[in-house]
Formats: sequence, C-alpha cells, structure tokens
Amino acid sequence: MASDQPASGEDSLIARYFRPIATDPGAFNLDDDAAALRPDGNDVVVTVDAIVEGVHFLSDDPPDTIAHKALRVNLSDLAAKGATPAGFVLTLALRKDDEDWLKPFAAALGEDAMAFGCPLLGGDTVSTPGPLMISVTAFGRVPPGKMVHRSGARPGDRVMVTGTIGDAALGLAVLRGGKVHAATDAAAREALVGRYRVPQPRVTLAEIVRNHASAAMDVSDGLAGDLAKLCRVSGVSAVIEMEHVPLSAAARDLVSRGIVGREMLVAGGDDYEILCTIPDEGVASFEAAAQFVGVAVRSIGTVVDGRFAPKFIDGQGGEIALERLSYSHF
Amino acid sequence: MASDQPASGEDSLIARYFRPIATDPGAFNLDDDAAALRPDGNDVVVTVDAIVEGVHFLSDDPPDTIAHKALRVNLSDLAAKGATPAGFVLTLALRKDDEDWLKPFAAALGEDAMAFGCPLLGGDTVSTPGPLMISVTAFGRVPPGKMVHRSGARPGDRVMVTGTIGDAALGLAVLRGGKVHAATDAAAREALVGRYRVPQPRVTLAEIVRNHASAAMDVSDGLAGDLAKLCRVSGVSAVIEMEHVPLSAAARDLVSRGIVGREMLVAGGDDYEILCTIPDEGVASFEAAAQFVGVAVRSIGTVVDGRFAPKFIDGQGGEIALERLSYSHF
Repeated sequence: MASDQPASGEDSLIARYFRPIATDPGAFNLDDDAAALRPDGNDVVVTVDAIVEGVHFLSDDPPDTIAHKALRVNLSDLAAKGATPAGFVLTLALRKDDEDWLKPFAAALGEDAMAFGCPLLGGDTVSTPGPLMISVTAFGRVPPGKMVHRSGARPGDRVMVTGTIGDAALGLAVLRGGKVHAATDAAAREALVGRYRVPQPRVTLAEIVRNHASAAMDVSDGLAGDLAKLCRVSGVSAVIEMEHVPLSAAARDLVSRGIVGREMLVAGGDDYEILCTIPDEGVASFEAAAQFVGVAVRSIGTVVDGRFAPKFIDGQGGEIALERLSYSHF
Repeated sequence: MASDQPASGEDSLIARYFRPIATDPGAFNLDDDAAALRPDGNDVVVTVDAIVEGVHFLSDDPPDTIAHKALRVNLSDLAAKGATPAGFVLTLALRKDDEDWLKPFAAALGEDAMAFGCPLLGGDTVSTPGPLMISVTAFGRVPPGKMVHRSGARPGDRVMVTGTIGDAALGLAVLRGGKVHAATDAAAREALVGRYRVPQPRVTLAEIVRNHASAAMDVSDGLAGDLAKLCRVSGVSAVIEMEHVPLSAAARDLVSRGIVGREMLVAGGDDYEILCTIPDEGVASFEAAAQFVGVAVRSIGTVVDGRFAPKFIDGQGGEIALERLSYSHF
C-alpha cells in the first residue's frame, strides 16, 4: 500500500517481521490494538510463561532456538492441561531493533506457530536497556470444565511421565563446560544441548491426558519439585522408584560412569515433559493411546496418602535424599 | 494448610502476594499452570501491553502507581475496542523478591482488579538482572464480531477524543525537572504527574464506543501519531482543529504562557484516552451517552479522503507543522 504516512519504529518492526506469521483472522493482520478469539463452546485455557536472557536461555543461544523455546514452554503447559492450541500473544523486550536477530527469530516463531497450529494473534514490542525477554501468553481449548488440574491426584493412582528426564539439565551443564562437557562426545553434547534449547512439547498427547489423567502438569522446574507441587495441591504424596525414571542413552551413560547422579537429573529443570497421575484402571488405555501417537510414557511410581514430600526410593526400597527439590530463580 | 513440603521461591511469592487477589473461579486459586475463561457466546478480545522501568515508568515511581499503570494501559485498550473486562494474566520480571515493593504492588493491582471487574487469572514471575518489567495480557468480551477496529473510519466521520490530551507528557516533564517544573505550582504538578503515573481508562465508555464508533483506539503514543495509525489502516486522512483538542486547566495555562506548545501536547504519549471516529448521524447520541456515564468527549476534527498524514490546523485554517508524529522507543 502506497502511503506517505510515516510508520513509527515499533509499528514497522511488527509489520516487517511478525505480520507474515499472523495469519489467523483473529489477528486482524496485526493492524489493531487487540486480537479476538471466537467462541466455539469450549473453555479457553490461558497460560503465560516468560523466558529471560541469562536466566532461561543463554546470551549466545541462536535466535531460532530462543523463539522455539519461548513458544514451546507454553505449548507444553497447554498439552499438560489437556488443551488444544488456539493461538498466542507475545511481549518482546529488546535492547535494539536488530534485523539479524529478529528475522530468524520471527521465522522460527512462524514455523512453530504453523507446525503446532498455534497462530500469533498479537503482541507488544518494548525497548529495554536490560536483558532480552520474551513473554508468551498462549491459549488453548478444552470442552467446558475439562481442563486437567494439578489437584486431582488420588492415592493409588500411577505416576507417569513422558519422554526422558534430565537431558535439558545436562545440556545446560554441557554449555557451561566442566565435567559433563568433558565426559561427553560431540553427538551426545548436541543431543543434550538440543533438549535444553528446544523443548519438544507433547502436544499430541493433550487429548489423551484429558481423557485419562486425574492430575497433570508439565515438568519445567525439575521432576522432583514439580511432583511435590502436584502432590501438595492434591493433598497427597507419592513414592517414586528412581530407577524407573526414564533416561536417555546419553544420561544413562553419564550415570553409569558416575559423572552425574540420578538426583541431579530429577532436580534439574527445562524437561518440558508431561507428569501426570493415572487411575490404575486407565493405565493400559493411556499407554496404548500414547503409543499410538508416538509418545513414550513411563510409570515411575504411585500416589500415596500423606502430606510428606514425595519419596524417591532405590531398587532396595531405600529412600534417596534429594538436596534440592526444584529450581527456583529466587 | 499444614505441610512439610517446601515451596519454591516463586511459588511462595505468588501465594503470598497474588493469591488473595485471584478470586475468580477461572484462576483456580493460582494453584495450577493455567487459567480458564468460560465461553459465554461473546468473542474474547485479547490485548497485551508491557511497561518497562526507565522506559514507561520511572525507577522511583511508587509500586502502587506502577501496578495501576500496568493494568490500566490494557484496560484502556479493551475500552477502545468496545470490550468489557474479563480478566488478566501477568508476567512480572523482578530483580529480587522484595516484600516492601511486592506488597503494595499486589495490593494496588488487587484494588484495580476489583474496581474494574478484571480479575487476576494467572501469571509468571521471573527473575531478571535487568530493569523491572510488567507485561499484562488482558481479556475482554464483545458480542461476536463486534470488536471496534482501527480500520473503519470513513470520510465525513467526526474525530472525537475523551478527556484531555497532553497531561501525561507534561507530568513526565515535571518529573524530569526543567522549565515545565519551574513554571507550575504544587497542585498543577501533582495533577499532571498523576496523569502520567495513573491512567484513567475509559472503561465505562466501552459499550458506547461499540455502539457508535466506526473506528477507535486508545491514545498511548500521542494523539497525532495514533491518529495517523488509525487513518493509515482505514485508508483515510483527517483534519484536526488544534484549538479544539481538549486541554486541562494546567495544560491551558502552560500553553497560554508560552511554556509549551500545543504541538508538544498532541505528540506526547501516555494519555490513555479514547480516540474514535463517529459517523455524523451518531454524534449527538454518542455525546449524550458519554455524558450519561460522566466521560467528557470532544469533537476535534473530521475524517477526510486522502492518504496524507492527518493535518492539524489553527484557528485561521493554516496548517501547523508537527515535528514528531509519535513517540517510538526504537
């Protein structure tokens, strides 16, 4: 459109980089101050997660992986709540309008929006003298009242987890150098760093979680700490068989050589796997459905009565002491 | 609830300060990873606006006014879109868990949530080594397809604005010292600084805007620049009579004494008034309805054909040159 009306810096920034990926009709081509979500009879599930440079990602992480992480940590939340992605809005706090960074960032965000069916609906770009920060508010849909909560776990339910645990924490350890870096080969390093930088949200499992789980959440602050939160809100506890916690080949190798302990893996963060509790009678059906969509799930323990922190036990039934339950930034 | 399960820093921070204000059932007592908005047949309007310390507010602004501003800039967007507030989620990037700051911040946020019927639904608190930042994603409701856009202005429509323009820019000038500070008395300073720190979102006008306006937006980056945006998206231009732009007593006084020009006032930001275009036949009804809810509205000009930037003219019809159309942080 020919126009002699000057666009402000922020407007043209949004137009240049983000309009091409804002294809949903409710985004109004990013020409407006707001987006609209049409009612379809479902509840709109809302989740918000922000990532900060130097805290949740590293300053030299590539812009495309930062974009993937910013959106996917939210898609992971939606999946754990049993919700189908419906769209997201973005707050981007930038030090400067840097095309070399914004172009691959927006492109990667667009790829994920397309791949996960979660279109960009709007956003705000602000200037900051501080670290880069990306806050995403994501929307999903569930049938009315069917959002899966943290609070529904009952004694006797199986504790299940998707994928493998601890790889992202090992990936961060690789990036920081030190003994994990020294003890791994290039292929293992790449796999582990990939798990830290680019979560794989279990979006295909959302409906299955909704139909089977008594409680669920995604594992973002470490399995042990997040399980403790789920148990606390459910008013229960759990006993976890440490050896059943699923590990990748790289993690198993590091554990078997004594480089890291399993305690470190269940305390580390950034897994973005789904932790859920499944009533006994639904476990077989849950496992079959998960297998059908290609997501590995593993039973790692049992929900029990009690208000104590979840216990992690070894093969002999002895309790394993965990020093740090979970990662907290404060 | 008695529990020997330790809460992580972030969890307890949310519990301590924000749970008391998260009273909506869809907030699930902030015990979950997500909130839920129930369908009621309306569209859900979504807007996101972030404020950054040193950019949108000053480091020594009181925590309660920062909370008011963070929410109200979003309420202002909802009102301009014709939407009734339904709730909000919050991202809070903090340098540290500072009770002396968080307590009044959360209290003020809770007061506004109650006053404007816009409950806190959820949030994410992250640690940052950089400036304080608050990003709010707010939700409103409008009947399906009835969100008011920027794009509907048509030649012949009246350009209308609520309240007074330029006070927030003068308030910022007061806080920065200099000639505006020197030229004002304590009462004027307080009034102007109040306009900068605590916007008055025109929430009561939302339905009236929806029923009357062909286009609307809130004035956040300066009247001149924001009008240019509205015109650009509508494919029109406008002629504004500068002397009709409504000014407060304090602003009028500064203009009459030659301390500031009207150009500075229409270029300044942070007004959070509603700018809208009203088809001629609806102007009387719009004015009457606005008067009924106690919001001052003023006709300041006319939408015209053309793709040029809106013209501001003086009492003799001469064009007034505006150096800077709008504030941009980049």
